Amino acid sequence: MHILVIGAAGMLGRKLTQEVARGRTWGVRAADKLTLVDVTKPEQPDFSGIVELVAADLAEPGVAGQLVADRPDVIFHLAAIVSGEAEADFEKGYRINLDGTRALFEAIRKQGAERPYCPRVVFTSSIAVFGTPFPDVIGDDHVLSPLTSYGTQKAIGELLLADYSRRGFLDGVGVRLPTIVIRPGKPNKAASGFFSGILREPLAGQEAVLPVAETVRHWFASPRAAVGFLLHAASMDTSTLGVRRSLNMPGVAATVAEEIEALKRAAGDAAAELIRREPDPVIEEIVAGWPRAFDPNRALSLGFSGDASFDAIVDSYIEDELGGLRPA
Amino acid sequence: MHILVIGAAGMLGRKLTQEVARGRTWGVRAADKLTLVDVTKPEQPDFSGIVELVAADLAEPGVAGQLVADRPDVIFHLAAIVSGEAEADFEKGYRINLDGTRALFEAIRKQGAERPYCPRVVFTSSIAVFGTPFPDVIGDDHVLSPLTSYGTQKAIGELLLADYSRRGFLDGVGVRLPTIVIRPGKPNKAASGFFSGILREPLAGQEAVLPVAETVRHWFASPRAAVGFLLHAASMDTSTLGVRRSLNMPGVAATVAEEIEALKRAAGDAAAELIRREPDPVIEEIVAGWPRAFDPNRALSLGFSGDASFDAIVDSYIEDELGGLRPA
Repeated sequence: MHILVIGAAGMLGRKLTQEVARGRTWGVRAADKLTLVDVTKPEQPDFSGIVELVAADLAEPGVAGQLVADRPDVIFHLAAIVSGEAEADFEKGYRINLDGTRALFEAIRKQGAERPYCPRVVFTSSIAVFGTPFPDVIGDDHVLSPLTSYGTQKAIGELLLADYSRRGFLDGVGVRLPTIVIRPGKPNKAASGFFSGILREPLAGQEAVLPVAETVRHWFASPRAAVGFLLHAASMDTSTLGVRRSLNMPGVAATVAEEIEALKRAAGDAAAELIRREPDPVIEEIVAGWPRAFDPNRALSLGFSGDASFDAIVDSYIEDELGGLRPA
Repeated sequence: MHILVIGAAGMLGRKLTQEVARGRTWGVRAADKLTLVDVTKPEQPDFSGIVELVAADLAEPGVAGQLVADRPDVIFHLAAIVSGEAEADFEKGYRINLDGTRALFEAIRKQGAERPYCPRVVFTSSIAVFGTPFPDVIGDDHVLSPLTSYGTQKAIGELLLADYSRRGFLDGVGVRLPTIVIRPGKPNKAASGFFSGILREPLAGQEAVLPVAETVRHWFASPRAAVGFLLHAASMDTSTLGVRRSLNMPGVAATVAEEIEALKRAAGDAAAELIRREPDPVIEEIVAGWPRAFDPNRALSLGFSGDASFDAIVDSYIEDELGGLRPA
């Protein structure tokens, strides 16, 4: 089985590749070839089969055609310009997030026009496809009404995925990822960065800034759960999906206060004292437009499973990123 | 005021042009220039101002740029490959309905990059953006889940319209048209054709075929009401629209039986006897996936108004197409 990962050098792409390379997927049919693609050449994984590492821009003419020329069985499409950059650079966001995605789907369709080909395509979408006004708990039938160009591009990708699936050109599953916490690595400038920062920095004995009120409620998944969503999407039975190919994932709804309580349980009150309150009206306004919780019935009934609790999210970070070592 | 109508040679395009030419719009600011575009050259309307008639394909490189080069104040974008053809010819549907629409929005954005320009853009969408499963009455927050490539392309057009409006590149209003009855002219092969045919043909003393059960319920508007929606969309205050730029229009929900009752009231029982029942399982299945009714609260609160009843739909056809003459 040949697996293609587009966007393999990103945080989720690397973790996903690792799990695929370890054989954590598809029961008896293990992967024997991995093609890993990103704008910068992905790292060589620890894998017994064939590995191709490709540095390429999916939106460049011909690239998508080359990537699917040897007909991978499963394609993970994770590549995207993130929210902030797609908002700052309108043309770049549409070029990568819309044109790149469409180029991939078109290349698959053209492969199938030569002789039958219908790969599983796992598309990473986002809860950014939703925008206010929405209810406190968003159901599976709620309108997509993005408030950013990024969310618009993801929503369009979902529509294309559904139509190409309906026509039998590909077998798509769209995964609307919750906000990923605790994101490993350095703080970044994303408006959502503090959700991870207020945990990650104190767990490393460092100060973190909290720019919003503790009552802010949001929808989360650990990197481990997110990789699990992608693997399940790649192997699940899609026959009952119908035309609705994109799903709200089972995240964990939590307030900032609940995040902090989980931090205290994992690392003591001293860790929580490293959080400095510095209200930022700009971030507060952005965050006010974000979903607070979902009722992910369809995904649950289709076998997706998420983190058990916010404590489990913190524990998985300590296990995966800190070698299981809790701060004293 | 300069008005550009793209898709001006179609049934709605012609009726819209006629109303604009008559001055039925925008209170004090009448149109003084009309640019009418379609793939075949539109007919010369009866209009006192400047008229440009253009035969052009919006999806061809450079065409959109030429159409907006002299900065029309209002742009009606009605051009589309219809549902059946977009399903039969995948590439053509995406080329016209998606690439053509995007080319128009991009051309407007590029005009605005030179010096400020933000025209009102009225985009005709369709209830084909909705697909089963849905409730009996679809509300304003229901997910877009099209069952056809046409519906997908319209849903993507709506998302682009919203994002380009949010960014200030244009001032868009999307109008999700109900099924138009009674469509004048010859019977066509559209699966929805019988909704008009079972009225239009008997009103002309001719036989018509009914391929579905009389219990089938659907959502309708007269051509006159549809033109009214477009004119209101062109002149309304958009400041309260927010990011949700596309609206379910106030149609009339009616069963086939109610259509037939309205026909009897307008033209007597003899007219209804010209309807021949010939169940067609293929059409029955297609129609089963179509919306039955809407709760168009947003459109009503924004001043859109539709037909008063199904009788009013029949009456408007008799007035507009039959010179007010009812069959004996």
